[in-house]
Amino acid sequence: MRAVTTTNTRVLFVKRPVGWVDESSFAVVHEPMPEPGPADVLVRTIYLSVDPYLRGRMAGAFREGEVMVSRGVAEVVSSGHERWKPGDLVWGFLGWEQYGVVRRGEGLYPVDAGLGLPISYSVDVLGMPGLTAWVGMDVLGRPAPAETVFVSSAAGAVGSIAGQLARLAGARVVGSAGSPAKVRHVVDELGFDDCIDYRAAPSLDAALEAACPAGIDVYFENVGGPMLEAVLGRMNPLGRIPVCGLISGYNATDDPGVRGFAHILGKRLTVTGFSIYDHMWRFEAWQPKMAELVRSGAVRYHEQFSDGVESGPSAFVGMLKGDSMGKHLLRVGDDPTR
Amino acid sequence: MRAVTTTNTRVLFVKRPVGWVDESSFAVVHEPMPEPGPADVLVRTIYLSVDPYLRGRMAGAFREGEVMVSRGVAEVVSSGHERWKPGDLVWGFLGWEQYGVVRRGEGLYPVDAGLGLPISYSVDVLGMPGLTAWVGMDVLGRPAPAETVFVSSAAGAVGSIAGQLARLAGARVVGSAGSPAKVRHVVDELGFDDCIDYRAAPSLDAALEAACPAGIDVYFENVGGPMLEAVLGRMNPLGRIPVCGLISGYNATDDPGVRGFAHILGKRLTVTGFSIYDHMWRFEAWQPKMAELVRSGAVRYHEQFSDGVESGPSAFVGMLKGDSMGKHLLRVGDDPTR
Repeated sequence: MRAVTTTNTRVLFVKRPVGWVDESSFAVVHEPMPEPGPADVLVRTIYLSVDPYLRGRMAGAFREGEVMVSRGVAEVVSSGHERWKPGDLVWGFLGWEQYGVVRRGEGLYPVDAGLGLPISYSVDVLGMPGLTAWVGMDVLGRPAPAETVFVSSAAGAVGSIAGQLARLAGARVVGSAGSPAKVRHVVDELGFDDCIDYRAAPSLDAALEAACPAGIDVYFENVGGPMLEAVLGRMNPLGRIPVCGLISGYNATDDPGVRGFAHILGKRLTVTGFSIYDHMWRFEAWQPKMAELVRSGAVRYHEQFSDGVESGPSAFVGMLKGDSMGKHLLRVGDDPTR
Repeated sequence: MRAVTTTNTRVLFVKRPVGWVDESSFAVVHEPMPEPGPADVLVRTIYLSVDPYLRGRMAGAFREGEVMVSRGVAEVVSSGHERWKPGDLVWGFLGWEQYGVVRRGEGLYPVDAGLGLPISYSVDVLGMPGLTAWVGMDVLGRPAPAETVFVSSAAGAVGSIAGQLARLAGARVVGSAGSPAKVRHVVDELGFDDCIDYRAAPSLDAALEAACPAGIDVYFENVGGPMLEAVLGRMNPLGRIPVCGLISGYNATDDPGVRGFAHILGKRLTVTGFSIYDHMWRFEAWQPKMAELVRSGAVRYHEQFSDGVESGPSAFVGMLKGDSMGKHLLRVGDDPTR
């Protein structure tokens, strides 16, 4: 347990964005330490996860004036709940704040230190992003050896895992990413067979044809927009498109439509939108398997940190614009395991 | 066996259409009787099926100058193949002609007179349209009791069966059709719970909201375009959209795109394009079950006939424009069972 300071830096969601979100949707405030009720758990935030899906919540579920919320890792400071005691490491939905009160400790899960991996992995490769990649690729995409798998946002938190899982299944794996450095990372570090720089390609159609000469059997969809249209034209018959995200449209105020929908019929494609909430029951059996893949080096993972909860707004806006490599996290407080 | 005449009226495909197909893509010719080779089967055409998918073949697979081809029912006139003898009733891909030569009898199947139903049913409710409806609804759509199922082209050859199968599964079934007479047919004859006249509705969104107050769980997609966009907005979470056809786009020269694709992610929808060719292995087990549903009256079926092979071009163009009710067939020659 660390010494408790007397102020609490927090990031509030203050303005629902229209179009591209910027930092004016957030306010950094310094408030007194929160006071937990008798059955509550007071936590000290260590890591917070910066995720694309938060943009959707800013359009709907989040209420203006309340603290931003995402998954994170924390240390229990004090607990009125028998399940937790001071010093326990937990993960779950946490406020973007140095200290937070979790009512009755609801929604907290233990960080399994026995896995022998960084505790931040609880909110990325061993947490929801990892499970999302696995459900999308192994459950819905079902790549077969020698098939071609294409992954957009291949340098991202989910896409980087999804592509490596496809490679482990024996598929040829091609990614797309938005800078030369990311392309190198995807090929050299993550072991993809090829990667397109979608920002540099004069034609996505031509780039896909060159990188996927045998067509595409599985498209792990993270972006939507022109990339989706180009991929539909390149899909093979009976291909599968698990739809994990459509980030290119998250900040859009109009919907230009997706051309090439007829390929879904003509090529007998299966397009499946999915949410990890429908698959939480898989978590317990899945996590130890994923941990083994990471420990053995079969799956590699890259984390990028911004320091301080107050760096959250700029990290989030930059992540949506493609500035992040791998998983973007806020390092809010000291990690007692490092 | 009927007397053999000396001329053979045929419909040739002569001009690949651009945009809306019209009768100038066809030519009616009168030619001498064909001469079968020693191993061939000479057939006399009785019924020919007029189907939307033929528009796609006119854009690609069909070659100009050759006879139009669709599924049909015929009587064997002479046979050099041991499997067939004169007088046998067969179905399969046949030319749009009074008499045709089937090389080595390949692709012919027996009409099962033992089913106790009209022989024309071999190319509609007991044939590919029926199997298509069953695969789309029962295999891919999987309606549960109390779910809402929406079927476009509900008065059509496939949609009319698909909706009745959903009703038999206990779902609430709503259709769409393009005239007051069709709407009455769908509700009064086919037993749908409700039906929208999509041509008369000032707003598809409002019409769907009124007809499907609990949302839509399964959309049996035949049309695409504005109807698909309206349905995407009305789908329930975890809904299924088997894509059987996209007829509204078959004659289009541009692709305006499908708006609302993000609903596939947001509502975790599964969209599955399918072709009956991937499911032919189901035919043998399925046909007797379907025949029983038809004989018992559980599934009702409507056929509309145009007389003479030369009526094919106008029947086909009219069918694509929505003029047909139920299954449109050409009655080319005498039916020996009637």
